[in-house]
Amino acid sequence: MTTVHVRLRIDLGPACSIGPGKVALLEAVDRGGSLSGAARDLGMSYRRAWLLLEEANASFDEPLTRSSVGGAGGGGVELTEFGRALVTTYREFERSVDALGAKHFRSLAARAAAPKRGAPTRRRPLNRR
Amino acid sequence: MTTVHVRLRIDLGPACSIGPGKVALLEAVDRGGSLSGAARDLGMSYRRAWLLLEEANASFDEPLTRSSVGGAGGGGVELTEFGRALVTTYREFERSVDALGAKHFRSLAARAAAPKRGAPTRRRPLNRR
Repeated sequence: MTTVHVRLRIDLGPACSIGPGKVALLEAVDRGGSLSGAARDLGMSYRRAWLLLEEANASFDEPLTRSSVGGAGGGGVELTEFGRALVTTYREFERSVDALGAKHFRSLAARAAAPKRGAPTRRRPLNRR
Repeated sequence: MTTVHVRLRIDLGPACSIGPGKVALLEAVDRGGSLSGAARDLGMSYRRAWLLLEEANASFDEPLTRSSVGGAGGGGVELTEFGRALVTTYREFERSVDALGAKHFRSLAARAAAPKRGAPTRRRPLNRR
């Protein structure tokens, strides 16, 4: 049984684009409450995670994350309600698109070529559900 | 009014992935009947177009294009029925996903940040409808 999987990126305006990278970062921040932990989770440098979060936060007229205070390690980062709404909307949309893709491409997927023996399989993005 | 636009790529198997580049190439081949013309249309090298078409044709158990014979310039390339079905399915799916995206992200799109003055706008892929 072949599964159809759709990779997507959504442009909500000329300065606002959301894809799997930013969403996975927001989810990792939500899980661990820190940007350095999120960077580690996703196997990216702290600098790259910081820049990506910066870009995500500048994409809307309201921030997706805020600094949290207290806790054993001092201050951390947490999602705002708006940030959490974005993640939820993106993941719901992704599930709908995957279902729609399976419907549209069912007969074409049955004709997909078999992978060559020994050929590397295509890398799947991290933290994809 | 903000428009929501979804960029997508569909994985139909470990050795079969279809995105805007291959579909635009197939459409250009269909319009002009030649690979060199299609490469010119899309602003890519003949070599790159050839490799992309090769990869697209190897993605399914049936070819998407075939050599055509005759015509003023000698032989060319044309889409098979299967290739044409793939292009149609992809474009229909894309329209459905854009409509679904507009529904899911309507309220979030209204919160997208305004582009900075003088900032470059995000490049849109070629031949996107």
